[in-house]
Amino acid sequence: MSLIVQKYGGTSVGSIERIRAVADRVNACRERGDQLVVVVSAMSGETDRLQSLAREIQERPSPRELDVLLSTGEQVTIALLSMALEALGCPAKSYTGGQVHIRTDNSHSKARIRDIDGARVKADLNAGRVVVIAGFQGVDDEGNITTLGRGGSDTSAVAMAAALGADECQIYTDVDGVYTTDPRIEPRARKLDHITFEEMLEMASLGAKVLQIRAVEFAGKYKVPLRVLSSFEEGEGTLISLEEETVEDAVISGIAFNRDEAKLTILGVPDQPGVAYEILGPISDANIDVDMIVQNIAADEATTDFTFTVNRNDFARAMEILDSTAKTLGAREVMGDDRIVKISLVGVGMRSHAGIASRMFASLAKEGINIRMISTSEIKISVVVDQKYLELGVRTLHDAFGLQHADEAIRDLDSATDMVVV
Amino acid sequence: MSLIVQKYGGTSVGSIERIRAVADRVNACRERGDQLVVVVSAMSGETDRLQSLAREIQERPSPRELDVLLSTGEQVTIALLSMALEALGCPAKSYTGGQVHIRTDNSHSKARIRDIDGARVKADLNAGRVVVIAGFQGVDDEGNITTLGRGGSDTSAVAMAAALGADECQIYTDVDGVYTTDPRIEPRARKLDHITFEEMLEMASLGAKVLQIRAVEFAGKYKVPLRVLSSFEEGEGTLISLEEETVEDAVISGIAFNRDEAKLTILGVPDQPGVAYEILGPISDANIDVDMIVQNIAADEATTDFTFTVNRNDFARAMEILDSTAKTLGAREVMGDDRIVKISLVGVGMRSHAGIASRMFASLAKEGINIRMISTSEIKISVVVDQKYLELGVRTLHDAFGLQHADEAIRDLDSATDMVVV
Repeated sequence: MSLIVQKYGGTSVGSIERIRAVADRVNACRERGDQLVVVVSAMSGETDRLQSLAREIQERPSPRELDVLLSTGEQVTIALLSMALEALGCPAKSYTGGQVHIRTDNSHSKARIRDIDGARVKADLNAGRVVVIAGFQGVDDEGNITTLGRGGSDTSAVAMAAALGADECQIYTDVDGVYTTDPRIEPRARKLDHITFEEMLEMASLGAKVLQIRAVEFAGKYKVPLRVLSSFEEGEGTLISLEEETVEDAVISGIAFNRDEAKLTILGVPDQPGVAYEILGPISDANIDVDMIVQNIAADEATTDFTFTVNRNDFARAMEILDSTAKTLGAREVMGDDRIVKISLVGVGMRSHAGIASRMFASLAKEGINIRMISTSEIKISVVVDQKYLELGVRTLHDAFGLQHADEAIRDLDSATDMVVV
Repeated sequence: MSLIVQKYGGTSVGSIERIRAVADRVNACRERGDQLVVVVSAMSGETDRLQSLAREIQERPSPRELDVLLSTGEQVTIALLSMALEALGCPAKSYTGGQVHIRTDNSHSKARIRDIDGARVKADLNAGRVVVIAGFQGVDDEGNITTLGRGGSDTSAVAMAAALGADECQIYTDVDGVYTTDPRIEPRARKLDHITFEEMLEMASLGAKVLQIRAVEFAGKYKVPLRVLSSFEEGEGTLISLEEETVEDAVISGIAFNRDEAKLTILGVPDQPGVAYEILGPISDANIDVDMIVQNIAADEATTDFTFTVNRNDFARAMEILDSTAKTLGAREVMGDDRIVKISLVGVGMRSHAGIASRMFASLAKEGINIRMISTSEIKISVVVDQKYLELGVRTLHDAFGLQHADEAIRDLDSATDMVVV
C-alpha cells in the first residue's frame, strides 16, 4: 500500500464532467489499495472571474482581501470533488488550507509554506477516506487566509506529500510529461521517463513551464519523488527524482528556451570595486528581476562593459534607469535589445562530461547563428541569440545532441573542451 | 458613539454596483462616529448557482460538503465589500464565520449558533476598522464548516450583536419595514414604527416573511434591539424591541396570513386518553409539521372530532397517514380540505383588552365569511377560512381595527367578551 498525493490543476477540474473524470481516476487508484490525498486548484476560469470582480472595485485591491476572495475558488472544487467521490461510493472529506493548518508567512498573494500539520489528514486516511485539499492557500499565524500565488497548488501538493512522508507526489496536468524541448518547435521532441530535480529546476525556470519552480525546489529539498502526468491520457508521465534514482544517464536531458528576454549593455564604465552593485542596485530597487549577468574587461583595460538581461516587459523601465546610472557613473554608452531569446542546454550529465559547450557552439555556428551572450552553471549552458533564430537554434541543438531517441542520446563525449566561463 | 451591527442580504449586495452602494452607506455611518460590524449574505443568485453545481454531481450531496461549497458565497461578498470600503478610504477587515469563531453545533445546513468569540472583532473596532463578517456560516467543534440554513445571515447578525453587546442590529432588506399587513392585499397597510419581539414572531411565522424567525427569537432572548430597513431607500424602518420600549400601544399591531395551509379532520374517534398522540404521532414521524390543532367533543359525547392543519405540500401524504390511523382507531370518517387559508390578528395589546375576538368574528360575519377553525394564543387570534375569502378577510379586519392610521388604532375596547378558547 502506497501513500500518494495527487494534484489536479484548473483545466483537469474545469467542468463537472472533468471533476467526475478525476473522481473516477482517484477512486480507481484507491481500489488498487493506495491511500490518496488529492490537492486541487480552482476550476479553470474561476480565478480570473474572481479577479475581475475585484478589479471592478479597485485597480489594486488589498492583498489580504484578494486572498480571501481567490481562496474561494479552490474551496468550490474540493467540495464538488468530494461529492463526486462520494457519489462513486468512495468515502471522502474536503479541507481548506486553513483547516489542515497549511501555515504560511503573511506575504499575501505570494505566501510561503512554513509547516503543515498532517495529523488530521492521517487520521482520515487511516479511516479509509480519500482526503481532498484546497491547493494554493494557507493561513498565517493570525489565521488570515493567504495564497501562494498562481500555480501554488503544485507547491501545496509537494508540501503535503513531504509532511505526510508520501511515497510519490503526482502532478496531473494537460501535458503527458516533460519533453526534451517544446514539441511545437521540434516535433521530434521526446518525452523523458526520468529527470533530476536540478534539471527540472533549470527547465522550469527557463520557460518549460510544466511545474511550478517552487514546487520542484520543495520536492528536491524534502526528497519527494515527483511525477508529471496527463489527466486526460493514460501513461507513466515523467518521474522527477534524485540523481541516483535516475535510470537514464544521457549527458543532456533537454533544451529550454525563453522568449521573454531583453538585453541591456552599459559600455565603458570606469572599472572600480562596487561598480556591479551601482549598476544593478537601482534596477533591483525598481523591482525588476535580472536574469543573466555578464561582465567583460573592455579593450582599454581601464573600463568595463557590463551586460544583463531582464524580462521584456521591464525593458523600457530598465533602459531609463540604466541611462541615468550611466550619467552618474560617467559611462560611455548604453545599448539595449529586446529582440533576443535565450536557449539553454540542461543536463546533470554535463558535470562529468567535457566538450558540451564546444559542440553547442559549433552546431550553432554551422547554421550561421551568432551567439550574443553566454552564461553557464554546473548543469546548464545558456546562450542569447537573435529571436529570429529561436526555432532553428532549438532544432539544431536537439539534433546535435541526439535527443530525439533515448538510445542515441550522447553518452560518449571525449572532447577536452571544458565548461566555458565568461 | 454607538456600536451597530448591520446586515445586508443577497439582493442588497447582488452586483458590484450595489456592493459599492452598501460601502457608501456603511462609510457614512462610520463617519457619523459609529462603530460598525457588517454581516453579509452571498450575492443574489450565487447560492443557487453553487447548489445547482452540486446537484449536477449528486441529487443529495453530502451535507458537510454542501456547506463547504455554499459558504464560499458569503466569503466572496466579504472580500468584495471590504475592498469597496477600502476604496473609499475606510479601513476594513473581512472574516469568515470560522475566523471569528462563530461556533455552531454540527447539524450541517441547519446548524445552530452556540457562541461567538467577539474579542478579535472588538480589537479591530477599537483600531478604527469596519469589520465585515460572512453571515450564514460557522464552524463546529472540530473545525468543520457549517451553515445555518437559508436566511441564516439574519441570525448571524443578531448573534454577533448579542456577543458584542451592540446598541442595535439593523437588518437591511428590500422592504422599508414591517407593515400592518401585506400592502399587495390591503393598499392602505401602514408601516409600523415599532413592534415587539413577540408580535414579530407571530407575524413572521404566519407568513409576513421579512425576518428569519430564529433571528427574532435570538434578538428577544438577548434583548438586542432589531431594526428592519430598506437598503435602497432612506428611512427609519421598523424597530423591533421589548414591550416596555414600544411607543405605540395599539391593541392590534398587524394582520398576518398564510396561504399554504391545508386542513384535515378525523371524525368520531373513540374518546380515550392518548388519542391525540395516536393521531399526530404518525404524522410527525413522517416529518410533517402540524400547525393548528383543535379538538371537540362530538355530539354523542363518547367520541371526539379532531382537526389540524399542515403545509399544503404535505396534504396528500398526511391524508394517507390519517386514513390508515382512522382504520386502526375505528374512527367514523376522515375529511380534508386544501383550499383554506389562515388569517391572524397579532398584538401584545390583546393581553389586556377583551372584546378583540368578538369584534373579529362580527366583522367577518358581516361580510358573510364563514369561520372554519379558530385558534388563539396570548397575543394572536387565528381563523381558518375558505381561500377565496383571503383578501376580503384581511381588508375587513384591517379596517375593523383601524390599522390604516396610527391615530385610529383601537385603544378603547370595553366589551366584556374575553379570549375565545376552543
